[in-house]
Amino acid sequence: MRSIVPPADHEGLDPADWPSTRAQAHRMLDDILDYVENVRERPVWRPAPAAVKAALRQPLPEAPTDLAEVHREFLRLVLPYGAGNVHPGFMGWVHGGGSVAGLLGEMLAAGLNANLGGREQMPVELERQILRWLGPVFGMPEGAGGLFVTGSSMANFMAILVARTGALGPESRRRGLGEARLAAYASRAVHGCLRRGMEMAGLGSDALRLIPLDPEGRMDLGALLAAVRRDRAAGMAPFLVVGTAGTVDTGAVDDLAGIAAVARAEGLWFHVDGALGALAVFAPSLAPRLEGIREADSLALDFHKWGQVPYDAGYLLVRDGALQQRTFAAPEVYLGRADRGLAAGSPWPCDFGPDLSRGFRALKTWFTLKVYGTRRLGAVIEHTCALARYLEARVRADPRLELMAPAALNIVCFRLRGADPDALNRRVVEELHEEGLAAPSTTVLDGRVAIRAAIVNHRTQARDIDALVEAVLRRFLIC
Amino acid sequence: MRSIVPPADHEGLDPADWPSTRAQAHRMLDDILDYVENVRERPVWRPAPAAVKAALRQPLPEAPTDLAEVHREFLRLVLPYGAGNVHPGFMGWVHGGGSVAGLLGEMLAAGLNANLGGREQMPVELERQILRWLGPVFGMPEGAGGLFVTGSSMANFMAILVARTGALGPESRRRGLGEARLAAYASRAVHGCLRRGMEMAGLGSDALRLIPLDPEGRMDLGALLAAVRRDRAAGMAPFLVVGTAGTVDTGAVDDLAGIAAVARAEGLWFHVDGALGALAVFAPSLAPRLEGIREADSLALDFHKWGQVPYDAGYLLVRDGALQQRTFAAPEVYLGRADRGLAAGSPWPCDFGPDLSRGFRALKTWFTLKVYGTRRLGAVIEHTCALARYLEARVRADPRLELMAPAALNIVCFRLRGADPDALNRRVVEELHEEGLAAPSTTVLDGRVAIRAAIVNHRTQARDIDALVEAVLRRFLIC
Repeated sequence: MRSIVPPADHEGLDPADWPSTRAQAHRMLDDILDYVENVRERPVWRPAPAAVKAALRQPLPEAPTDLAEVHREFLRLVLPYGAGNVHPGFMGWVHGGGSVAGLLGEMLAAGLNANLGGREQMPVELERQILRWLGPVFGMPEGAGGLFVTGSSMANFMAILVARTGALGPESRRRGLGEARLAAYASRAVHGCLRRGMEMAGLGSDALRLIPLDPEGRMDLGALLAAVRRDRAAGMAPFLVVGTAGTVDTGAVDDLAGIAAVARAEGLWFHVDGALGALAVFAPSLAPRLEGIREADSLALDFHKWGQVPYDAGYLLVRDGALQQRTFAAPEVYLGRADRGLAAGSPWPCDFGPDLSRGFRALKTWFTLKVYGTRRLGAVIEHTCALARYLEARVRADPRLELMAPAALNIVCFRLRGADPDALNRRVVEELHEEGLAAPSTTVLDGRVAIRAAIVNHRTQARDIDALVEAVLRRFLIC
Repeated sequence: MRSIVPPADHEGLDPADWPSTRAQAHRMLDDILDYVENVRERPVWRPAPAAVKAALRQPLPEAPTDLAEVHREFLRLVLPYGAGNVHPGFMGWVHGGGSVAGLLGEMLAAGLNANLGGREQMPVELERQILRWLGPVFGMPEGAGGLFVTGSSMANFMAILVARTGALGPESRRRGLGEARLAAYASRAVHGCLRRGMEMAGLGSDALRLIPLDPEGRMDLGALLAAVRRDRAAGMAPFLVVGTAGTVDTGAVDDLAGIAAVARAEGLWFHVDGALGALAVFAPSLAPRLEGIREADSLALDFHKWGQVPYDAGYLLVRDGALQQRTFAAPEVYLGRADRGLAAGSPWPCDFGPDLSRGFRALKTWFTLKVYGTRRLGAVIEHTCALARYLEARVRADPRLELMAPAALNIVCFRLRGADPDALNRRVVEELHEEGLAAPSTTVLDGRVAIRAAIVNHRTQARDIDALVEAVLRRFLIC
């Protein structure tokens, strides 16, 4: 037999010169900490000049580039032109502000490079610890399932799938939907990802019945009950009702206890979309607003919003963890489990969701919960709601402004009065962005354009609210 | 009108003492760089003692804990007990090794805290730059869609959805699947996430027809054609064929050009699952093996495997970006677009996939591609395949070992000969894990348990292969 020649050692990707790479790494850490520490000194947002965009358009890099040079490009082309949600003046959409503890937790996770799909490893155990913490907070029993995902869009979709398995049985995984005519229910203010979840699940968004709102923006429970019964009489199979803890447009919280009662009476799966509002459980003055959330069969929430964990860190809780497992688990031979070694520790996270490769979102969340504690996070949440009430009061007090919806939690919808107010307020928001002092977004309520300020960032103070109001009012004088 | 009292400033979550927090951050960076630099000195893996697991089970933290103390807990309870995939001796499942450039890119992303769902911001532009780089490499035209996702499990699922929209039309989003009896095709060696994708999409895994393999582990094209025609004759609607560039068990690459021809002739969507193998395009000696990949209608791949980007960083390419947009985009009023300001820059990434909240996976990938360059990444990929051929040669040369499948790329399946070889080889792998010198996983080929070594890590050298072989052979002597 001829001798077997081993391949020569390869340089791999580790630094040839560790000390200089390490020094560069520390410079990079300082730069990003500078960014966070001094964020108030910069504009909330500014548009990237065409030259900056053009400079990014380089050919695919075949040869290596020095790390310091790549970092300089990042500093020049990317860092100054983010969306701005670290800044206290950012109030657009619903974006968290991030935190240093979260940043550092994510840095450690990136070095450890753990794949949270499974295996016997402490990172998986740490993700389980988040479930042990969170489950009881939301009334979930032992045996509940919990899993990090990108965001609530994914968590809400997965909840639809688990509820679907509950309704059709696990053999529906193999057979498909067949003749089933499932129907789900949510308020008209439900987040669009629920519609998309119904689409992706093959059920179709028509099968998501949108229930009218009461004057506070919450699902009308009488209309819900009527819709369920009407569908049942028509041969549909109602299977799921979605309550919203904090609607995206106005922050309204559905009557979750009332929905839970309807769900029980009608044999429906009760899911709560808590993307915006679920973490208000940590705020003593707000927690009562979530009454009924502990009766949910499943719950979606986002740590990257009010939890201030860096993006992305969504989470799904499911009361019946075994049903969640029956919805996703599969007996792949290359994922076989053992009693000992790396393949021990079954069941694995990949048995409870669609992802096999999963980053270590639990670590930045663990750092955030430990370093700040739930009381301080709750105080931040209460403060953002106090700022919303302050903004609401300023709007109510000023005849040039119109309040578009009551501020249920931390979102205020208002607008400037004037001729052609829809176009006016769209333009005002665009100008505010370009001015860089305050960054709300827009929405449309009953066909009317509104300036929407979602106050999520832990850095936002009353003076940022004042800056927003004054910047809007300056436009009144101009027109 | 009574005066409006602004809420007092809140401390938020930023450090009260920046200099000391900054010093602690630098210590944490050093600790994680130490971990990477000295990884060879530690065991690949070791089980976490019961006391370590117990120490993690603390009550939900209500009060703050000092950052340094939380980090010490991480160092004590988590870091020593990861899965070990940073270590050169890790060859289990298919895990990348990570890199310093990726680590630092992720650290910057965590501080910038960008939400890549949309908005006019350079982070989104940078994600688009990855598409501009990657699209042409895989034969995608201008107008193709590209999107970061967690991993190929998600990318493959999304490809099924886009193909489904192509087959049923966009109104199927509203109406659901209806009477459609869609059928998809893949080889028996297809990754389990394709079955799960069919389940999630409501089509059912029975509708994924598993085509027999040829002796090299590739889809039998004659059998594919026969299955398509049989289904069509039976009233089914064939819509999708999935080729695999690197099967999970053996690394076999389907005849992609042949599948493309069948897809064209039969009017099927041609998707390639390139989770394992697609990045071999960067390796000149391997790229020809992927012939036909440039004809794919869609392609899933993972940067966190051979690309060595820290978890997670999956990617989906779709030739018809407009169809991808028609599959996912929705006209939500709170996501309204503008010509100027933060709401400009449409379409947004959230129009091309299920996620609205999305981390900045593009940044660690951009750092990786720039700092190392595609040639060096390609050389790493070639080296892992050379190591696989070396392992195969060692196995072939030793009568105590049995080769279970040809090493098509970087995966070698073999086992120790002996009585009750299935139980023996399962035990061998468990013992190898506990010994901490080498960490392969197991799979089952034609009903027979195999030791499976997937060589992915850029740090792995011939001596790590030797250590694996010798550790296995020691078990032969013992029995």
